[in-house]
Amino acid sequence: MRYEKMAVIGIGQMGASFALACREQGAVEYVTGVARSESTRRAAVQSGAADECTDSAREAVHDADLVYLSVPVGVMRPLMREIAPALKDGCLVTDAGSTKESICTSAQALLPDRVHFIGGHPMAGTEKQGPTHAAADLFAHTTYLLCPLTAPEDRVEEFSDLVRAIGAEPVVINPREHDRILAYSSHLPHLAAVSLSLTLTEEAPDDLARFGAGGLRDTTRIAAGSVEMWRDIFEANRSHLLTCAEDLRGVLDEFIEAMENDDFDTVADMLQEAHNFRSNLYGED
Amino acid sequence: MRYEKMAVIGIGQMGASFALACREQGAVEYVTGVARSESTRRAAVQSGAADECTDSAREAVHDADLVYLSVPVGVMRPLMREIAPALKDGCLVTDAGSTKESICTSAQALLPDRVHFIGGHPMAGTEKQGPTHAAADLFAHTTYLLCPLTAPEDRVEEFSDLVRAIGAEPVVINPREHDRILAYSSHLPHLAAVSLSLTLTEEAPDDLARFGAGGLRDTTRIAAGSVEMWRDIFEANRSHLLTCAEDLRGVLDEFIEAMENDDFDTVADMLQEAHNFRSNLYGED
Repeated sequence: MRYEKMAVIGIGQMGASFALACREQGAVEYVTGVARSESTRRAAVQSGAADECTDSAREAVHDADLVYLSVPVGVMRPLMREIAPALKDGCLVTDAGSTKESICTSAQALLPDRVHFIGGHPMAGTEKQGPTHAAADLFAHTTYLLCPLTAPEDRVEEFSDLVRAIGAEPVVINPREHDRILAYSSHLPHLAAVSLSLTLTEEAPDDLARFGAGGLRDTTRIAAGSVEMWRDIFEANRSHLLTCAEDLRGVLDEFIEAMENDDFDTVADMLQEAHNFRSNLYGED
Repeated sequence: MRYEKMAVIGIGQMGASFALACREQGAVEYVTGVARSESTRRAAVQSGAADECTDSAREAVHDADLVYLSVPVGVMRPLMREIAPALKDGCLVTDAGSTKESICTSAQALLPDRVHFIGGHPMAGTEKQGPTHAAADLFAHTTYLLCPLTAPEDRVEEFSDLVRAIGAEPVVINPREHDRILAYSSHLPHLAAVSLSLTLTEEAPDDLARFGAGGLRDTTRIAAGSVEMWRDIFEANRSHLLTCAEDLRGVLDEFIEAMENDDFDTVADMLQEAHNFRSNLYGED
């Protein structure tokens, strides 16, 4: 399987990595990147991810066989409306958004029947932004979630093959179930890292860096992620995330109550349960 | 500077790493390890950290020039009481406890004047336990906090030189200020990781591992740490940690309120503040 032309709309770390990975597999001939900022467009070409870049999504898609949407979740809907009339007949449209229900609903409402949409969520990427942080091996040994909706079986197989070719494992999931699970597995960890970081802003950063070790570094790392991207994720997955956040607050309340009561047997039980959970999460980690 | 005999009481990851690091620098001739469990004693000798091991702290210290206490914080006081009469005149006693005020108070009350105590806190180690996870380079490029109390200047210089020799930077700090800052830089991150982990226990671990990425892995990692060690830290630093935990709950409340009110401009402001904090924490991370 080989695409003559791919358009990557929003050619940041994720979009540029996908383009680099596809190129490395010889799965794509020519890549057009789309970005608002000129420096991103330049960096995308310099990194080898894109052959050319433009600021017009509509222009980029008109002759593309594969259209990769990697913009913040909140921008997906207006972007789909903009590109819909310009999409080439029979092209494959996919996205890399971290929530799926709202995006899949938009795709079904806005994209024409003459194209095929498969929702996607690559479980990859770091807190860094932009094509200079892209890597062809970003997807190696990761899971790539797919919401094929009404796309024909052969197009789903075709895209799954591409996902496998770049080193990831494709897993089909229902958009609503996706958003529920991801609220726990990804969005709540982000909320926790951000909340912890905000709690620490009162302390002098020099002291924290000096008196903190790997624990501080790891628990706060993802808080440096893209504000625009995460605002949109939180908004799109508001209802599931609220449930998770209330659960987290409940656990914190239990800790505080136990410590206030000098009940360190309960604290130890909670530490033990968390220890067991984390020790088993990845098997022999 | 060279110690003829060192006793490492509690020869787990930390104590064994300290012994290995001192050996590598030729700073110690003979190491006696102390551990309750026979398998730990065997592993400590096999790893090369100790020349011999015993289950008697009193026996281990009687001819030791350097005594390294690396047991859980809650065990320090009874341990000091046990070894006090057996300590060799003029020996240097130090500890590796993660809180300092209660330990330093115990040392001043329980250790005889004929020995010298310097409180210590190596900002190193991982969530793994036991001498099989020890490494001579565990302290490289880390900070090693010291509470010299009334120890003579030349003994403080001597121990600081040893700390530098194993690759760490010695930093003198007041015990109370230590505990206040560490509540933020270390104990609260641990509480956050544990609370997050407990919130996730309702979900199937397979789903979480499959649908989580590096964020989930990193934000929960330290929750796999030693239950006994962390119970003692939380108990010893209860009052500072309660303040921090209430601060964290306050931030979480703000997030929940903003999301309930569909106020994603406030959410974005909070994400931005956390992003700025974490991006600046380690300079160019």
